[in-house]
Amino acid sequence: MKFYIEKELTNGRARVGKIETPHGDIQTPAFIVVGTKGTVKALTVEQVKELGAQAVLANTYHLYLQPGEEILKKTGKLQKFMNWDGPTFTDSGGFQVFSLGVGKDSKVSKVAESGEIANEVIEPAAKLVKIDEEGITFKSILDGSSHRFTPERSIEIQHKIGADIIFAFDECTSPFASKEYQIEAMKRTHRWAQRSLDYHRSKEESKVQALFGIVQGGRHKDLREESARIIGAMDFDGFGIGGSFDKEDIYNSVGWVNDILPKGKPRHLLGIGEPIDLFGGIENGIDTFDCVTPTRIARNGALYTRDGRINIMNSSFIDDLGMIDAECDCYTCTNYTRAYISHLFRSKEMLAATLASIHNLYFIVNLVKEIRQSMVEGKFEGFKKSFLERYY
Amino acid sequence: MKFYIEKELTNGRARVGKIETPHGDIQTPAFIVVGTKGTVKALTVEQVKELGAQAVLANTYHLYLQPGEEILKKTGKLQKFMNWDGPTFTDSGGFQVFSLGVGKDSKVSKVAESGEIANEVIEPAAKLVKIDEEGITFKSILDGSSHRFTPERSIEIQHKIGADIIFAFDECTSPFASKEYQIEAMKRTHRWAQRSLDYHRSKEESKVQALFGIVQGGRHKDLREESARIIGAMDFDGFGIGGSFDKEDIYNSVGWVNDILPKGKPRHLLGIGEPIDLFGGIENGIDTFDCVTPTRIARNGALYTRDGRINIMNSSFIDDLGMIDAECDCYTCTNYTRAYISHLFRSKEMLAATLASIHNLYFIVNLVKEIRQSMVEGKFEGFKKSFLERYY
Repeated sequence: MKFYIEKELTNGRARVGKIETPHGDIQTPAFIVVGTKGTVKALTVEQVKELGAQAVLANTYHLYLQPGEEILKKTGKLQKFMNWDGPTFTDSGGFQVFSLGVGKDSKVSKVAESGEIANEVIEPAAKLVKIDEEGITFKSILDGSSHRFTPERSIEIQHKIGADIIFAFDECTSPFASKEYQIEAMKRTHRWAQRSLDYHRSKEESKVQALFGIVQGGRHKDLREESARIIGAMDFDGFGIGGSFDKEDIYNSVGWVNDILPKGKPRHLLGIGEPIDLFGGIENGIDTFDCVTPTRIARNGALYTRDGRINIMNSSFIDDLGMIDAECDCYTCTNYTRAYISHLFRSKEMLAATLASIHNLYFIVNLVKEIRQSMVEGKFEGFKKSFLERYY
Repeated sequence: MKFYIEKELTNGRARVGKIETPHGDIQTPAFIVVGTKGTVKALTVEQVKELGAQAVLANTYHLYLQPGEEILKKTGKLQKFMNWDGPTFTDSGGFQVFSLGVGKDSKVSKVAESGEIANEVIEPAAKLVKIDEEGITFKSILDGSSHRFTPERSIEIQHKIGADIIFAFDECTSPFASKEYQIEAMKRTHRWAQRSLDYHRSKEESKVQALFGIVQGGRHKDLREESARIIGAMDFDGFGIGGSFDKEDIYNSVGWVNDILPKGKPRHLLGIGEPIDLFGGIENGIDTFDCVTPTRIARNGALYTRDGRINIMNSSFIDDLGMIDAECDCYTCTNYTRAYISHLFRSKEMLAATLASIHNLYFIVNLVKEIRQSMVEGKFEGFKKSFLERYY
């Protein structure tokens, strides 16, 4: 994997670039589409490609439990398994462990006080997880069987899954955890990062798979900066910025971290994807994002438009012959009326989820492309202002 | 609509032909894909087209209840509404009324003693339907509200939906009903056929929409023949052969009827689509079929292969890297392993239904095309024998 910065904005953080992977390039900033279980929910890979997605991110935890990494390895790794010939990412499973444990107990998901921007939260019994210095023991959400992830095991699984970009195994904490616990968890994450890196570098797979370290530190500036210094000094190919955020703190945290991380390596903001957060993240130096929000809310009928979100289940759309977003060029808006989408949702037809997911992903993927274009043309501030004023 | 017979088999019944509609031609024999509510379940219209489908059949009863025919008319009729630019059919709603009433009471669906070849059976409370000479009063499965279909109303709704080929309003009976009741219902269906035809011919829509009459008569040779004589003598553009069949009687019934119906008009066998029934129907003079079976069983993981059906939920497929059917050229078989499809079903991913539906529809649509080709080449008997021996 190689990363090139093509242009930097005058604010010193934001940049336009390109990530080269063995399966193709990613023009950054970019929104990476989530395919948790080796499928972008309700879409074929051709639909994912047609809507403009450059890369797909799958989930180590889910694929480990089902179908198991050996089947992926045998099939020819993630790309072959799911028939996606572009770049791929896998997260490390750390966040899912958080979701199963303290995240569930404290009812906090990816962003505090925003149920909408939740990452993939599994429905577990609480206390399914035990953390020690060596790793994490957890019970399967599928059958209750006991499993164990260590940093080495997470990387081994990710090698077998075979994504182009993989992540170090980390511990994600709740923003409501005590500072003492945040420090303890962060320091453990740093030790796990080094172990992930050491294991990775000792294997052949490190020649074709890139490993990103994950910065933690919660809402605390001193911890975020310390984590960025320590993780940033390690020989990772790029970085993830993880953790459960307080809604107001995302931009601050990202900026603190990116001022410290080495400039020449890509930075991925894990699990964040609201329009306002895309602008804030990019402005503060983020190159790639992933988030389940566009597809999750699509399946509930919530659809993005330039004038903000609509819910297609609203009765006003039953006989509305307009398109979801009159300015949208996606497959759904090009071919179907709001009345038809409304009918599909009311009839509980599966095509509803497909058409809605195509639209929402197109909206977000292409919003990031538009942001990129505005940066290339030196018009970022103006585009941000006009988009956000109209959307919110 | 025009119909041309291009070749007849020496048995005097089977024929190769072509139906020309305002939205394109149908090479017959043909399997018509079912899109009950204006969507082929889990598929986009591009996927439907790519798998080889020539035409789609939607359901008057369902579209009348939701979203209502006025919305289809406003959108630009069924083609525009669902974005399918090929030929379309709508059935008349008669079979759904049967499903709601006596069909449900007697636990009989499209084919007696074969739960698999069931047409679209709604989940109703029994006795939701009352039949009188003028028409049928029924309660909505959506909200319990009371509705009434008459032959004229069914045709009026079908005019607004705007399919290329529409059906007369009929009463479908259970094969277990008494012969007295079968006679009574058949005679009423004949009167309704004439009323459907009179209403249709009095409207402008009859210039662009073709109306097919429906032959009933249950399992009784004398009634089937009587119905074929009476319906066949009316000025319909084509014919449907309807009714709930006893499994063993399908071919017999179809043959009796087609020996009487005028040769120069197309004949559609309503709601039948098992491989053996396709051969039997075509051999006995059927030009088009529709059936929900391929997509319904696909959603449950039952998949066609040349060697018979498999269920992908079987644990032997979890790590099976072969394709569903090694001889199949469909999108699914070209791109995905049995292991991946198994994983999607086990993970309850929506793509499972999409990939399985594509495969099953491709299998059936292309089986009928192969049968057609075998007829063109004078090899029908041999193809039938080799296919059926291997499949069953």
